[in-house]
Amino acid sequence: MNQNSNTRSVSDIVQARARKFFSKKTLHQRLPITQWLPKYNLESLEGDMVAGLTVGLTVIPQGIAYALVAGLTPNYGLYSAFMGCFVYMFLGSCKDITIGPTAIMSIMTHEYSVDKNPDYAILLCFLSGIIIFAAAVCNLGFLITFISKPVIAGFTSAAAISIASSQLKGLFGLSYQSESVIEAFSKLFENIGDTRWQDLTLGLCSIVVLLLMRKLKDLKITKVQPDDSTYVRIGRKMLFLISVGRNAIVVIVAGIIAFAAKSDTFTLTGDIEAGLPAFKAPPFSTWDNGTEIYFSEMVSNVGAGIIIIPLISILESIAIASAFAGGKTIDATQEMYALGMCNILGAFVQSIPVTGSFSRTAVNSTSGVKTPAGGIVTGLLVVLALAFLTPYFKYIPKATLSAVIICAVIFMVEYETVRPIWKARQLDQIPLWGTFLTCLFWKLEFGILVGVGINLAILLYGVARPKVNVSTVLRKDESGPHYVLVEPRSGLFFPSVDHIRGQVTKAGVGPAESSVMVVVDCKHFTGIDYTATKGMKSLCQDFERRHQPLVFTNVTPGVERGLCSLIDDIVIARSSDQIDAAYKSASSNAVAENLYSGDEAIRRVSRSEGDPESLGPLLEPMNSARPIIVPAHNP
Amino acid sequence: MNQNSNTRSVSDIVQARARKFFSKKTLHQRLPITQWLPKYNLESLEGDMVAGLTVGLTVIPQGIAYALVAGLTPNYGLYSAFMGCFVYMFLGSCKDITIGPTAIMSIMTHEYSVDKNPDYAILLCFLSGIIIFAAAVCNLGFLITFISKPVIAGFTSAAAISIASSQLKGLFGLSYQSESVIEAFSKLFENIGDTRWQDLTLGLCSIVVLLLMRKLKDLKITKVQPDDSTYVRIGRKMLFLISVGRNAIVVIVAGIIAFAAKSDTFTLTGDIEAGLPAFKAPPFSTWDNGTEIYFSEMVSNVGAGIIIIPLISILESIAIASAFAGGKTIDATQEMYALGMCNILGAFVQSIPVTGSFSRTAVNSTSGVKTPAGGIVTGLLVVLALAFLTPYFKYIPKATLSAVIICAVIFMVEYETVRPIWKARQLDQIPLWGTFLTCLFWKLEFGILVGVGINLAILLYGVARPKVNVSTVLRKDESGPHYVLVEPRSGLFFPSVDHIRGQVTKAGVGPAESSVMVVVDCKHFTGIDYTATKGMKSLCQDFERRHQPLVFTNVTPGVERGLCSLIDDIVIARSSDQIDAAYKSASSNAVAENLYSGDEAIRRVSRSEGDPESLGPLLEPMNSARPIIVPAHNP
Repeated sequence: MNQNSNTRSVSDIVQARARKFFSKKTLHQRLPITQWLPKYNLESLEGDMVAGLTVGLTVIPQGIAYALVAGLTPNYGLYSAFMGCFVYMFLGSCKDITIGPTAIMSIMTHEYSVDKNPDYAILLCFLSGIIIFAAAVCNLGFLITFISKPVIAGFTSAAAISIASSQLKGLFGLSYQSESVIEAFSKLFENIGDTRWQDLTLGLCSIVVLLLMRKLKDLKITKVQPDDSTYVRIGRKMLFLISVGRNAIVVIVAGIIAFAAKSDTFTLTGDIEAGLPAFKAPPFSTWDNGTEIYFSEMVSNVGAGIIIIPLISILESIAIASAFAGGKTIDATQEMYALGMCNILGAFVQSIPVTGSFSRTAVNSTSGVKTPAGGIVTGLLVVLALAFLTPYFKYIPKATLSAVIICAVIFMVEYETVRPIWKARQLDQIPLWGTFLTCLFWKLEFGILVGVGINLAILLYGVARPKVNVSTVLRKDESGPHYVLVEPRSGLFFPSVDHIRGQVTKAGVGPAESSVMVVVDCKHFTGIDYTATKGMKSLCQDFERRHQPLVFTNVTPGVERGLCSLIDDIVIARSSDQIDAAYKSASSNAVAENLYSGDEAIRRVSRSEGDPESLGPLLEPMNSARPIIVPAHNP
Repeated sequence: MNQNSNTRSVSDIVQARARKFFSKKTLHQRLPITQWLPKYNLESLEGDMVAGLTVGLTVIPQGIAYALVAGLTPNYGLYSAFMGCFVYMFLGSCKDITIGPTAIMSIMTHEYSVDKNPDYAILLCFLSGIIIFAAAVCNLGFLITFISKPVIAGFTSAAAISIASSQLKGLFGLSYQSESVIEAFSKLFENIGDTRWQDLTLGLCSIVVLLLMRKLKDLKITKVQPDDSTYVRIGRKMLFLISVGRNAIVVIVAGIIAFAAKSDTFTLTGDIEAGLPAFKAPPFSTWDNGTEIYFSEMVSNVGAGIIIIPLISILESIAIASAFAGGKTIDATQEMYALGMCNILGAFVQSIPVTGSFSRTAVNSTSGVKTPAGGIVTGLLVVLALAFLTPYFKYIPKATLSAVIICAVIFMVEYETVRPIWKARQLDQIPLWGTFLTCLFWKLEFGILVGVGINLAILLYGVARPKVNVSTVLRKDESGPHYVLVEPRSGLFFPSVDHIRGQVTKAGVGPAESSVMVVVDCKHFTGIDYTATKGMKSLCQDFERRHQPLVFTNVTPGVERGLCSLIDDIVIARSSDQIDAAYKSASSNAVAENLYSGDEAIRRVSRSEGDPESLGPLLEPMNSARPIIVPAHNP
């Protein structure tokens, strides 16, 4: 360290900070475009162009459909689909991710925005962005590690089922409001007499075609072989693009059918507001039946959404980033910066909350994207569609949009994770099903809280009730117990101290006679807190009162400091002579040569019995059975 | 296990359960009076009589004073002071504890009972009893281990300061309402012009006398010496009794002074309802300004109190029990049964919520109580006082009662724990001060929640971010790194897996060349969950992709099962031959003889280089750098 650090002037410190802040490394980290743009070449351009176009053709029908999921008019889905792509190009650290409207974010937006008023959705987008950005600034990224995979699986599956069941009405050509899965099905059966058969037929056909086209890209026929001729190669690539662009194709074809059919044959999307959204500040007040609602009231109306939506946004985006990172550790903080900025700037073009989309990120990746620049192509395509194609969007049949959504989400139901979770750890089924059922039958966001709660309870129970191995080590001549070895399998913190203390006491007064030495192996104690120290002090006092020797072995420096701070008369036996002496006096007529690694001591018992001279000054205090600490070899 | 256990009839199971339930051990455990009553003798009787009388003389003035703290008339304090003593005699497992009104329970009752209506306080007592009893039945006693000593210290100190500051108005002869500490002081300064000097003088004199008498019992003069004559011995005992009975003496003397003085000289307690309380069901409805309030509304009015009051009641009682258990482990469940029953039956004699009293338990213990039968003497004394002495209680000056309360609680401020907490673990200051300040400046019960939250956050941070030691082990000829040893210091669960994975990856691609073998020492992994298994699977895939060998050593069976369940191509090297073979093929030209105890391997490197025959069938898969598991020696 710098010897003059205390006398450094403030300007020096500011300069050093600034130097670090404006360093090349920080620039590369916080503005990842500076890493890849200098290396950009024609090959990157080709990959990015193809992938960007494909993602663009996917996001247009998805955006329209997800706007309906959010309870808004279709144009808001498209408004949400381009700003994220542009912003992520500059700030994103993962080439595959595409930011935009997603099924889960739409259903959350629907839940928290009031009366289908888009102003709430846009404000939520802006505030989510602010909160995500603030969380990144505060380095809160580590909090998402507390949401385990079973909880995510339960949540995603329940969300997929919720979304799919909410789309059944579109498929059947019905029109009703439903909030929950149960309500969606009960209303469906209530209204099933009003089914519009044209809609249902078109919807089911769309589903069948979508599923078949989805299968296409997994077939061998779409895989480019090394010995293919150029034409065959182009043909295969076309088939592949048809498969990944299936949503756009189905929507276009269904739109043409609807246009050609009589005007009331199918339930149509209807007029969409034409043109690009205005670039303006997000709405900090709105109108409800002629009354102006101010910012504070809007915020209180969206309630918990202001926390839940950013949380899920981060969760979804980071989960996708980890899945596509290809083994690299992802910079969660940078991803949060990027996501926050996408939402903040998105709100200026009337976007609803956005996050990374699993389906489109997969499309992007398989279409051969090379850099985040693919996003600019996607974004431009959406902008062009908004500028020139909105008049044609009104012919898109609602049943086909429902089919697109159902086919997208139904594969998100992670029924296949139940088995591996069972095999890895049965206990993890509890957070999985707890989350899933709470999400499905109560509320989506409560499910996550319940799941995290269950998970933490399991974790804390493990901390509070560590396994404690107790074994009696016999004397060499097997004339009786030499000492009782107690091995707690986990750390020593306030929730577990009573348990460990109880186990040690039981070992001391239990099977063995109450004067036998008890050795506590502290090799798993990573630290000790005040409550635990107090508990150990009481334990030492109990043993002293019974004149029973108590030894702590393999004590790390932190634990040693804690124990010594409260227990005045503890003996620290550092050298092997001192240890010998301490044991000799503590246990009456047998000597443990080596208690460092507790379990080996069983075989190394008794050496120089007698020989009181060598005991030195330690003998005298030992007679009162003062507790002994043996520090660890390798702290 | 019983081979026929599957075919045992239901009646057999019921019989076995019943046999266990009605066993002598269960009887002794659940009705502790059956343990000590058969051994009761004259010596026990003498100790219990003296202690019971002393506690009785303490509880009468305290009960009157604490009723005022609870915002009720003084008689309710006395109603609360006897039933607990009777019930605890049968059910209590700790001879010293006396159950009754306490300062903290009174202030909590004041906070949750509405409009000084005693019906709320009695209902709270009844419901608290039910909840404590139910918690005992559900075995929820372990939950209190999650409240650490620093949190308890912070809470107790803040409660003491709250109570003391709420009593200042009585000391100054003022009369105003205050909710918080700040309000108490600001109102005091507002109204200080109305101070009644007679009250203040009497109050201050009472405080001085109480503090002096308190000091008396610590002096040598009250300690019985072996060579004392009988008279001296009785004299010393009298002095000691005067010291512990100081509250009663000061209250009686002040009452006589007030009786002798003119009627409006001091602010007096005023008329107290005479006679014993009726034995009747607790009030399930009440009246407010002529409207009847039903049970459900009463419950919703007391709100969170229904959880907080039982919690604090248990907390206080168990804390006292641990302090006076003298090293024995206390049966928290039995204490909860006893406490629950004390509250349930107390509500039938119009008691407010009760719990173990720290001050009276200390008095009981130092007065030489032998069995819980001391409580019967205390209880009878209170009953006699209620029956015959209530007409005289009205002369007790309020200033003296305030003095009694202030002198009782002021020693509960645990300023002396700050230093030991600092010495044991600095970090524990955060829950201490977080609890203290929240209790003092927000609400008492939120303080406990905040403290527990901080404590759990610290604990979980340790679980989520375990220390990971990374060291590079050189080849024997020091020609370069042999392998990188990664030693996580804690378990592998979902919050920590990303961190550990990141550290292992960094160790693999970081300082060493990226083909060097990485050895993860799993000796501290007590278990593995699904999320962690998934993370380890990704880690293995990363290493396989880089053709870099990865070895897990000291793997316990549970962790092995988890890893193998998800990672198909993992190699388990069980015998030392297999381990040798695995290492030989994994690391190119050096062999680690013993990696069981990771840190010793540094010195035991390289033996039979070459010798490909001995590698056997393990060699071939090793070339693809499949991950290797080395199970632990002693699981």
